[in-house]
This record gives sequence, C-alpha cells and structure tokens, in this order.
Amino acid sequence: MKKSTFGANYREVEIGKIEYIACAEPLVLECGVAVSNIPIAYQTYGRLNTAKNNVILVCHALTGDQYLCGTHPVTGKPGWWDRMVGAGKPIDTDKYFVICSNIIGGCMGSFGPKEINPETGKPYGLSFPFITIEDMVKAQALLLDKLGIDKIFCVVGGSMGGMQALEWARRFPQRIFAVMPVATSTRQSAQNIAFHEIGRQAIMADPDWCDGDYIVQKKYPSKGLSVARMAAHVTYLSEQMLQEKFGRNLQNGAEYTYGFGADFRIESYLRHQGVSFVERFDANSYLYLTRAASYFDLTRGGTLKLTDVFAGTHIRFCVVSFTSDWLYSSVESRNFVRALNAVRADVSFTEIESDKGHDSFLLEIPQFDSLVRGFIDGSAELYGVSF
Amino acid sequence: MKKSTFGANYREVEIGKIEYIACAEPLVLECGVAVSNIPIAYQTYGRLNTAKNNVILVCHALTGDQYLCGTHPVTGKPGWWDRMVGAGKPIDTDKYFVICSNIIGGCMGSFGPKEINPETGKPYGLSFPFITIEDMVKAQALLLDKLGIDKIFCVVGGSMGGMQALEWARRFPQRIFAVMPVATSTRQSAQNIAFHEIGRQAIMADPDWCDGDYIVQKKYPSKGLSVARMAAHVTYLSEQMLQEKFGRNLQNGAEYTYGFGADFRIESYLRHQGVSFVERFDANSYLYLTRAASYFDLTRGGTLKLTDVFAGTHIRFCVVSFTSDWLYSSVESRNFVRALNAVRADVSFTEIESDKGHDSFLLEIPQFDSLVRGFIDGSAELYGVSF
Repeated sequence: MKKSTFGANYREVEIGKIEYIACAEPLVLECGVAVSNIPIAYQTYGRLNTAKNNVILVCHALTGDQYLCGTHPVTGKPGWWDRMVGAGKPIDTDKYFVICSNIIGGCMGSFGPKEINPETGKPYGLSFPFITIEDMVKAQALLLDKLGIDKIFCVVGGSMGGMQALEWARRFPQRIFAVMPVATSTRQSAQNIAFHEIGRQAIMADPDWCDGDYIVQKKYPSKGLSVARMAAHVTYLSEQMLQEKFGRNLQNGAEYTYGFGADFRIESYLRHQGVSFVERFDANSYLYLTRAASYFDLTRGGTLKLTDVFAGTHIRFCVVSFTSDWLYSSVESRNFVRALNAVRADVSFTEIESDKGHDSFLLEIPQFDSLVRGFIDGSAELYGVSF
Repeated sequence: MKKSTFGANYREVEIGKIEYIACAEPLVLECGVAVSNIPIAYQTYGRLNTAKNNVILVCHALTGDQYLCGTHPVTGKPGWWDRMVGAGKPIDTDKYFVICSNIIGGCMGSFGPKEINPETGKPYGLSFPFITIEDMVKAQALLLDKLGIDKIFCVVGGSMGGMQALEWARRFPQRIFAVMPVATSTRQSAQNIAFHEIGRQAIMADPDWCDGDYIVQKKYPSKGLSVARMAAHVTYLSEQMLQEKFGRNLQNGAEYTYGFGADFRIESYLRHQGVSFVERFDANSYLYLTRAASYFDLTRGGTLKLTDVFAGTHIRFCVVSFTSDWLYSSVESRNFVRALNAVRADVSFTEIESDKGHDSFLLEIPQFDSLVRGFIDGSAELYGVSF
C-alpha cells in the first residue's frame, strides 16, 4: 500500500490499488512532455467474467476520485457514487466489473502534482507537466492494457467525467461499445472558463500557496482553496434549489447580527463546503485539473466539426442533461446530439427534470437511476455480455 | 475640496460637493448605532427650477458613485451613466435637476469605512458601523433636507440602486411621485447572498487585509479584492454574451501555452476587471456594501407581505428587468409587479430583450433609453413639472 498525505493537516492515508504504467514506451502528453512509469491509482468493483466483456469504466469529475462506493479513506464518508454503483444498484456490481481510476493530475494516488518526482525526491508542484482530458483518457487506456482488458462495453461519466467519456468515444472508438456522457459538454464554455479562472486566482492569491511549493515549505493555501471551492460550489447548484433549501434563513435566531459572521445559513453552508474541501484536496491538483477542463474542446478551436469528429461512429450513445443545470446546460447536450444524429449515430438523449442543478448527477434522482440501469442493461444485452 | 485616497497606490483625488448632515439630531442606523455630522458626497446635474419640482434622484449600485456623467476624478473615464444622464439624454439635464449621492458605506467621500473617524484620527476600518439599504436612503433624505428639497418627482436606480429606489417608495412615499427600479429585487436571493459571501471571503483571506486595518498598516488586499471583483463580474454578464464576445478565443496566437497565464481572452478580460477595480475601490467598503445588500428584504424575513408594504401607495411605478439578467431575474420583478397590481398601484412593467445580462442597465440598449425617457417625461407631465 502506498501512503499519501492530504490537505492542510497532512493526514496520511493508504491508497488502494496502484499500477505503474507506460513502462514499455513513454506516454507523450499533449503538452509534449513524455512520462513513463507513472502511478495510476484505481479501484475495481464486481468481478471480471471469463469472457472479459462485462467491463464498465466510470470516469470521475473534477474533484472526484476512484472511490465510487464503500468508505472513502480520506473523508470516511461513502464514495461519491455510492447510490449508483453496487450490488443490485443501477450499475450493478453483481453483474458488471466496474473500474474507476484517479485521473492523472489528480491527488488520490495517480500521477499528480503532489506526488514525489523520483528524479528530485520532492513533490512535483509546478514542475508537474500540463495534462489534458485526452491525456487522462490515454492513461486510463494504458491501465486497461495493464489489467489485460481490451474492450469496455460502457464508459460512463458526469461533468468532467463526461468529457472523458466523450474523449474515449473520439480517441478509442474501437475499444468501447456504449458511452453515457452526463451533464457535460463537447467544449468548455467561456463562462465555465471564467469560473475556473476565478478559482485558480483565489488559490494563487494565497501567500501560503508559495508559488506551488507549499508541501516542501510545510504550508497550505487553505484560505485560497476554500474560496475557490465556494465559488465553484455555487455553480453546481440551481438558484431554485438554493432558494428552497436556504432562502434567507438565518443561521442563529431571527435577528441580523450586523457583522461579517455567517449570518445566513447559505453562508455557513458555503464556508463548510470550503473548509471540508481543503481537508481532502490538493490545491495544485485543482489548478491543473481546472486547466485541463478549460482546454477541452472536441472541435479543436473550431477547426473541426463535431460531425467530422464522430462521422462513422459505431458507438451507442446515451446523452443526459438536467433542466436546472446552468453549468453544462441542456442546450450544449442538444447541440452534440444534433451532430450525432447528423452522422446517423445510434444516439438517445434524455433531459431530466430536476431542480438540483449541475450536481443532479450525484444526487437522488430516481428517473436518472432507472435511465442508467436501462441503458447499461440494454447495452449489455446488445453487446452480448455473458453472465 | 476634500481629498481622498484610493486603492493600492493611495492616489489622492479631490472629491466634489460634500454636505455634513444630521447635525441637529443623530441618524440612528438600523444596527442601533447613532451617528451625527456625517459627510455625504454628492453631485448635481442640471438646474433646480424655482418651483423645486424638477428633481430626479439617481441611486447608484454597489460599486458606483455620484459621478453619473462627465469625467470621473479617479478613473479619468466617463461617469457610470454618461449615456443616460446629460443634456438631451434620456434623463435630460436641460429639463431636470439630477442628484446623485455616494451611498453611506461607500468610498467616494461619503461616510464610509475608509473615512477618518474624528474621535480617533484614524480610518474607521472595521469599527465602522453596519449599514443597510434603509440607512442609505435615510442619509439621502437628510441630504435633500439640507439642500432644501422636499419632494423628488422621480427616483431611479438599477441593481442595488434599485433596492434604494424601492426603499424610498417604502420609507418616504410622501416625498416621491414616481419610481423606476431597474434590474433589482425586493429581497436579496440565496444565490446572490452566496456570491457576495464568496467575495467577502476572498478579501478577508488576503493577509494584506490586516483584519480591516490595511490603511493604517500601509498595505492593501489587492489580490483578494481582485478575486472578489472577478467573481462578481461574471455574474453581471450573461452566458450568451460571454460566449459571443469571448467564446474560446485565445489571448495570443492559436496554440495553448500549457501554463497558468491568461491563455483565453475571457481570462485576460477578467484579470483586467479585477486589477482596475482595485485602483478605484475600497476593500472594506466592498465588505460593508455587500453586507447591506444581503440584509435587504422588504418583507422583513417573510413577516410582511409585499402587498402590506405597498398597500395604498400613490407612487407611480415603472419596473424594468432584462431577459438575460440571471442575477436579478425577471421572475423577481414579476413577483413584485404582481403584488403592486394586487394593491391597485399605478404600475408598469417592461422586460427588455437583451443578451447582455445584469449589466444591461449600464450598456447601450436603445429600448431601455427610450423607456427611461418616456417614463420620466410622462411622470414630469403628470406631476406638473414646470419648465
């Protein structure tokens, strides 16, 4: 077991399975840097069948990780998709072999800025190379090679995980049968680039960031990272949900305190989101991963059309959006589905009614659960998964 | 002339007209603190007629000030409503006497946290009392008393200026004939409270904020205030406008730099907004004014109905919203207009088609210009303004 430290308190936790990949030939990242023998931390759920055709790959979002279900080693809480993945659940581990790996650039054991650079014996920090969504996906593909798995029958991912799912469909169409991109987009919008820039500026404004060298200097940009998380968190929720859940309710009593404390419950909630995030996430990872999201654009700056990118695709698509998601709105999903239809792809699109905003894909939405179950079981039948 | 210092560079500028008000009896703020002889900086445009019945009061928004038109003494740019106020413009200074005063809590010469506390000889900083929208309006009313003006025929304001306009209608209905609240709400929503909390946390996270004592300590929380401004600025624009104006355009050349510089034009634009704001605005003022906005709620925590608040009102209302404004959406204006209609008020409502977001009220929208002109000239005629 590899140990890893987390957050302002530098708690040590044990990371689960890790493979060191790309030993034979280096992985050349989009930025031009070649890396080899990099760690990829991952978890598997369920059992691989003898035909090796019951594999589902789940791609996690910006601040997610490989711990889909069960107890998370850092937070002690259930994994981020505990309600979706497990025995008898929509992604049924009694039937399928589910793989989820920590994306490169992340901070849960995979090759990321807080890992030790073997050449220097120190954490990479800002010497870490810039990574892209394509790089993440190529690293996942190398992990599958290492695990001896050739084909995945379904790739599922929400938000930045959805970008990875789309990138799988573009980059490795021969290796996947079906794909389910949820609450995502084929390119990061100007507004989303802006929100991520605010987060990065908040982190880099914190003197305890130490130009990225905070681990060596035994400091931590807790305040900056907390502000970044707060700014991002508001974008994950809908205005309607905020109004219904918090409204103008006061934290204590019925009177204003006339102070800068958390008078309103929404203020207290946001502060809590910021503080608890700092405990589990690496600030430099946040910089690198938001940068990767900003760089994501399947049309490559408009030089390609989506219809070109997916012309002739044989992949079965199920695109999902949520009505109140203003970060990755249904409009973006619809544009993508239109392009897929134009190239006669096998594509289904569902816009799910929800007032929970972007985070809907993580929350209790029964209609979404049955959609996931139906698409996966249906794809398994078509693909001929042997049980 | 009173001199005042601004921003990280402590430039000195001369502030225009200032009255010291509430000499006779102290102004009791909502927080319970009584203040007296406080400075109110203001500008007037046009000429007061002999009947003193051609007065328009313009209330400025969060980061605005009394400089509606002409050259701003700090920025050297035109005042914030130069396109709306002036000779022959929709708010026509050939016909009307326009008053705009810096709100208390602000930083352009009125009683605010960067002013010198005469009792200590030092800037107030965090010893400044908490102020509310009602307090701002009461200070404006005292200014009008001092100027010998009893009645205003029209109060106009957008965003937080709209809150003041609404508060005028609630608090001093006998002193106004017409009111035009633009892009505003009768209470700050949970989402808007959240965005302001993020801004305050960004400022207070900056060690150069020095617990509010930065002026004395000759420091300035430039980075924190800049992040706060960036976070707020995104909310002032619509997603559509951001996409059309910036999209994914790169700042330099056609290639990603694979770095944390401002690769995208939207990133460069936002950074510029942050940096230029720091030069003209006081960080503690930003804390106090956003707090005042958060506290604004005409229903007083739901203990009152809007129909109770405005029952029997004789004021002529013209409520304006913009379709792409997601900060103060049309839904909120509609709810208010419904309440006014329920109490048989004289109310008109216009939702203006615009893709420019919340900032529409500051930008070139010909339909809005003609609406302002029409409502003001029409109200002047009904009120019997003598020219």
